[in-house]
Amino acid sequence: MLGSTHGTLTTHNRVAAYSASDEQPRPDGDVDVSGQPLQATEVDLDRFFRPESVAVIGASDAEGRPNTGITRQLIAWAERVGARLHPVHPKRKTVFGLPCHRSVADLPEPVDLAVLLVADPLPVIEELAAAKVKFAVAFASGFAETGEAGAAAQARLAETVRDSGLRLLGPNTNLNAFEAFREDLEGPAIALITQSGHQGRPVFTLQELGIRLSHWAPTGNEADLETADFIEYFARQPEVGSIALYAEGFRDGRSFLLAADAAARRKVPVVAVKVGRTEAGARSVASHTGKLTGADDVMDAAMRQYGVIRVDGLDELQDTSALLARAKPPQAAGVVVYSISGGTGAHFSDLATAAGLELPPLSADKQAELHQWIPDYLDVSNPVDCGGHPVGDERGRKIIDAILADPAVGCLIVPITGPFPPMSDRLAADLAAAAETTDKLICVVWGSPVGTEDAYRRTLLGSSRLATFRTFGNCITAVRAWRDHHRFTSPYFSPFDEAPRTPSPSARKARALLKPGQQLSEHAAKQLLRAYGIRVPREQLVTSAAASVRAAAQVGYPVVMKASAPQLAHKSELGLVKVGLTSASQVREAYRELTDIARFENVELDGVLVCQMVERGVEMVVGVSRDELFGPTVTVGLGGVLVEVLDDAAVGIPPFGETQARRMLDSLRGRALLDGVRGAPPADTEALVEVVLRVQRMALELGDSLAELDINPLVVLPRGQGAVALDALAVCS
Amino acid sequence: MLGSTHGTLTTHNRVAAYSASDEQPRPDGDVDVSGQPLQATEVDLDRFFRPESVAVIGASDAEGRPNTGITRQLIAWAERVGARLHPVHPKRKTVFGLPCHRSVADLPEPVDLAVLLVADPLPVIEELAAAKVKFAVAFASGFAETGEAGAAAQARLAETVRDSGLRLLGPNTNLNAFEAFREDLEGPAIALITQSGHQGRPVFTLQELGIRLSHWAPTGNEADLETADFIEYFARQPEVGSIALYAEGFRDGRSFLLAADAAARRKVPVVAVKVGRTEAGARSVASHTGKLTGADDVMDAAMRQYGVIRVDGLDELQDTSALLARAKPPQAAGVVVYSISGGTGAHFSDLATAAGLELPPLSADKQAELHQWIPDYLDVSNPVDCGGHPVGDERGRKIIDAILADPAVGCLIVPITGPFPPMSDRLAADLAAAAETTDKLICVVWGSPVGTEDAYRRTLLGSSRLATFRTFGNCITAVRAWRDHHRFTSPYFSPFDEAPRTPSPSARKARALLKPGQQLSEHAAKQLLRAYGIRVPREQLVTSAAASVRAAAQVGYPVVMKASAPQLAHKSELGLVKVGLTSASQVREAYRELTDIARFENVELDGVLVCQMVERGVEMVVGVSRDELFGPTVTVGLGGVLVEVLDDAAVGIPPFGETQARRMLDSLRGRALLDGVRGAPPADTEALVEVVLRVQRMALELGDSLAELDINPLVVLPRGQGAVALDALAVCS
Repeated sequence: MLGSTHGTLTTHNRVAAYSASDEQPRPDGDVDVSGQPLQATEVDLDRFFRPESVAVIGASDAEGRPNTGITRQLIAWAERVGARLHPVHPKRKTVFGLPCHRSVADLPEPVDLAVLLVADPLPVIEELAAAKVKFAVAFASGFAETGEAGAAAQARLAETVRDSGLRLLGPNTNLNAFEAFREDLEGPAIALITQSGHQGRPVFTLQELGIRLSHWAPTGNEADLETADFIEYFARQPEVGSIALYAEGFRDGRSFLLAADAAARRKVPVVAVKVGRTEAGARSVASHTGKLTGADDVMDAAMRQYGVIRVDGLDELQDTSALLARAKPPQAAGVVVYSISGGTGAHFSDLATAAGLELPPLSADKQAELHQWIPDYLDVSNPVDCGGHPVGDERGRKIIDAILADPAVGCLIVPITGPFPPMSDRLAADLAAAAETTDKLICVVWGSPVGTEDAYRRTLLGSSRLATFRTFGNCITAVRAWRDHHRFTSPYFSPFDEAPRTPSPSARKARALLKPGQQLSEHAAKQLLRAYGIRVPREQLVTSAAASVRAAAQVGYPVVMKASAPQLAHKSELGLVKVGLTSASQVREAYRELTDIARFENVELDGVLVCQMVERGVEMVVGVSRDELFGPTVTVGLGGVLVEVLDDAAVGIPPFGETQARRMLDSLRGRALLDGVRGAPPADTEALVEVVLRVQRMALELGDSLAELDINPLVVLPRGQGAVALDALAVCS
Repeated sequence: MLGSTHGTLTTHNRVAAYSASDEQPRPDGDVDVSGQPLQATEVDLDRFFRPESVAVIGASDAEGRPNTGITRQLIAWAERVGARLHPVHPKRKTVFGLPCHRSVADLPEPVDLAVLLVADPLPVIEELAAAKVKFAVAFASGFAETGEAGAAAQARLAETVRDSGLRLLGPNTNLNAFEAFREDLEGPAIALITQSGHQGRPVFTLQELGIRLSHWAPTGNEADLETADFIEYFARQPEVGSIALYAEGFRDGRSFLLAADAAARRKVPVVAVKVGRTEAGARSVASHTGKLTGADDVMDAAMRQYGVIRVDGLDELQDTSALLARAKPPQAAGVVVYSISGGTGAHFSDLATAAGLELPPLSADKQAELHQWIPDYLDVSNPVDCGGHPVGDERGRKIIDAILADPAVGCLIVPITGPFPPMSDRLAADLAAAAETTDKLICVVWGSPVGTEDAYRRTLLGSSRLATFRTFGNCITAVRAWRDHHRFTSPYFSPFDEAPRTPSPSARKARALLKPGQQLSEHAAKQLLRAYGIRVPREQLVTSAAASVRAAAQVGYPVVMKASAPQLAHKSELGLVKVGLTSASQVREAYRELTDIARFENVELDGVLVCQMVERGVEMVVGVSRDELFGPTVTVGLGGVLVEVLDDAAVGIPPFGETQARRMLDSLRGRALLDGVRGAPPADTEALVEVVLRVQRMALELGDSLAELDINPLVVLPRGQGAVALDALAVCS
């Protein structure tokens, strides 16, 4: 479905997957128990964005050559940032009057940044590395985006750059980093990262609406520098208020998460469009839990886990990143909607409430205050309806100031559906003036489809202290993102700070149970769980009818009996499970039946499990699956037949802690089942959280050795009684 | 949460509810078995919108009077539509040079339309009715929107108008119907209906973007003329391509559905914003199914049932109604996305596919044809990526024409994220030119946030044959609505055509079982089902242990026994159900236990039910609840514990047929359970459809006598084996 545009990055999954064993341990060496880094790489990109000297390899001023236009743009950019520019070309003496050098070796000074306009960047990269150049940008296309031969050429580029000291942007990138940014705009800026120049253009164009942009990183094929490097760098820049990202894929899952984590620590919001909503998942599918979530669900979960705000449209990317760049943190939770029309206020409030914004009523005192200027028959609780006329005179400003002065109010939203100059012009002016006096968030929706009106273009867009939208929907999305960002980061506890660095005793026990390349028998899989302190029923594996009767006596009646064999799934459907056995004779008979069926089904048993019957509780599933980008992931969902019908599951990427485990449970549609419905007692959610955390620890510690784990069902007993894994499936790799 | 703006219409439920008994049978008399009309009322509004003579009651030309501005606007409007205008004022000789009349009685000719600018319209309304005036418009506010006294005044207005021959628009309406519509615009027009002038302004303003509007009906408090009357009238006007509706409430559920039905018969799309997403449902809640759906869910279902396209934002209302007004029916199902950037194409296609649009790949031949002009390494399957350069020369138009010439293609969508004049200007011009040559739908998304570019304002908006959007999201919403509208109406079978007009024999049997004001016992409720041919288990009601044993023998072992009493719900939780009884002694013991528990719980039993055990199947719930606007509604959902946790249910408004019953089942998230999961056999969906249809027939025939019905569970057996109502609850009113 998705077109190929940026080489290895096009899809979530076709990326060279992260694998702990491939990766060189970083020299600074802080890694978790799986060998993956715990710190984002800091790349000092100051000299990339503001170099002192720039070389342009392949510079031209010949009429009609494509490189001529590019050279001209680079010269203009170098002038703006105050860099000396050195054209390099083997056959020219000057380019646009600047002395031209025959080769990299002939450059008159050490160079911060080299821009490569040549078709084959590889030989030049080698020269640049030798000349200790800090950064190179390769525009050339024809690499991984074109197929296997191109991917091989790109791998050679990456290999040449590795450990050379030179950092490379591209190949297959463009001039976006060297655009002219408006310098007359005020306030914190958006920093933009894109994997497609066209797709970044609307965000860049926001400058024409008065929104400041500070940087644009067009990451191209990411042979070396990747999206994560720019997120981390931008989060450290004081002028950056938010990071807007258009992504088609990521090179490395952990790098991306670490960069998002770094941004969250600094409370710098990242707003992202990530293409791939409809991408077919390429996850392993032996287990039920594996089927519950596709690659895009995992991407969604990963972003949510680190507070990255994912949006669908470029318009939402623009409006949300612009708001988040400029809005101060909320001083209070209350959102108030104020309108000159009761219909407009009701409509906006309805959509806002449906989207999860809270619009608490104003206090009786505040309402009385507002009624000084607003007729009594109008509702001013929230939304505030002024009926229109008051905005035409001095009452208009007083109403706005009175709402903003309320200590319970953190955000004022004013939807203006249609321009009606006698009212809307003064309303806009009053809002812009009031915005100068407060750090509270003021949002205006200019609902006219025309958008050439003065009140909109001059008054509203002219203020850097107002957030102006064109649709109710985008305003609501942005305000919710603003609220959620501050909730998420205040305070923010990084899961990486708590990640285990050394294997637990459980890991040693568990590793001894693994059988590379094989699916474990149910009994063995349960031993794995037991190694991690996850409760399983008392059970014994027996190989004779007599032994099964002895086992039943020890386990305690009533018992369940199940055929046991590696590679054996869907036992119930084959008739290989017998429940509710209450006597020695029933046990003996069941043993005979199970072994008979196994013989007919050609299943080679390693025995029969005699298990304790467990009381009823809420059936859940908990599992581990491997995502090609993020590695092992933990899934928790509602169990039973619903696993297959409703896909009600949540995903977490290890490492994570209790907060994330609880968020996962809270995100389940069937969450209420755990709280007890129809008179059922509340389930032991604490025990469930503990199981999820133990499973994530196992996923992290066993890493690639554990291909899949599936606890199905995990019976969560009533509060205080724990949770028991009734069946388990594990596949080793 | 929602502010009050338009009197009785503000909320879904506070409307004077439809009740069959209140209603006068219409003289033309085509009514269904419940006494509700089966035909939309046709009001001839020609003389309202294009009167030959107009009276303005309370006309003024005095400086500084509010009525002066209104009078001036009405005079201008009368001139445009060619009407003679007669000012009426007791004290003026002339108004703006026109001879002024002292009273309605003094008018020089019969008048089509009287506009009332007076504060108290009631006495004038009486005069107008006496003078055989056809239409009156009352601007005055202070009626139902202000509270009880206002509502009473409004009721008097309505009473005066009723059967007078005069039809009234308002009160609490405005000048919107008399706005200046642009007459230079081409193509089918949008007709607009609003219950808030401010909220209609953006749709009206579309004329500035070249979208034609033909009418604006501001319905105000709807004391007489209501939204439905305008929908039905607009659907009959040849210049109307779509109807855009902003609604806060409806006066009468059946009228609205009949109007929507009339529009669907004529294939005129209705696009609606209906405020009330977050409205708390005020439905009756004794039953499980009643709790499943709030008033807004019913509204949503009602709209879907009659093909009304509900959207959330005014921007979507604008974009969707504009597209639907102008687009011809699809010539083929295929939607093709064409872009100058692979990233843009991939992003758009991803969102479109996620939203349910189908983007089939172009044929190999067509792709080969496109590769004449597009480099081979670019993907032209769908989305078509031309890489940019071809749009700059004559190849651009050839590509567009080649795609449009494909008989499999019904719609071409071209997202242009950012303006890049060397490419986007020519692309826009080529698209506008190509649109002149085809009736296929061409949509362009102009993604620049600025919107002042010539390519957008002149080239794209200048064409009435192109649909131009500003966001991917709104384009996708509109194109999906266009597809769905044509799927829904081609062909359209009206449920009203098949609605029963006379009671079935079942209805007579059922009515005999009803007990006004009481909840029936389970046994009695099951008799009600049986009267409608819905299968219930074999069962007998007994009042002694001995009788229970005899009953068990007749019913056949194993049996279930349940305590039976009116007003008895949640029997299982009280321990008043015993299942799986296999012998006379178990039955005798169960009888004793049940009667013991009942004594302790103070439940006065009318006996104990001895019921046949029914095999396992898929548990569903089917019920009837009363919606205050639409009357009895039928709900079907997944049963068991999920009823309370997941609210997975669908609603239908009787009368409806098999198509609607199947649509309801298909809309369930857990639909797959009926098809059989985990090796379960497919359930007897045909039998389930039949039960839903019989229940809707019962709801229609018993009408207000049946307050609630709840079949929970309905066990749907494997295919061919039917469905059995295991338990039932019925409340009579």
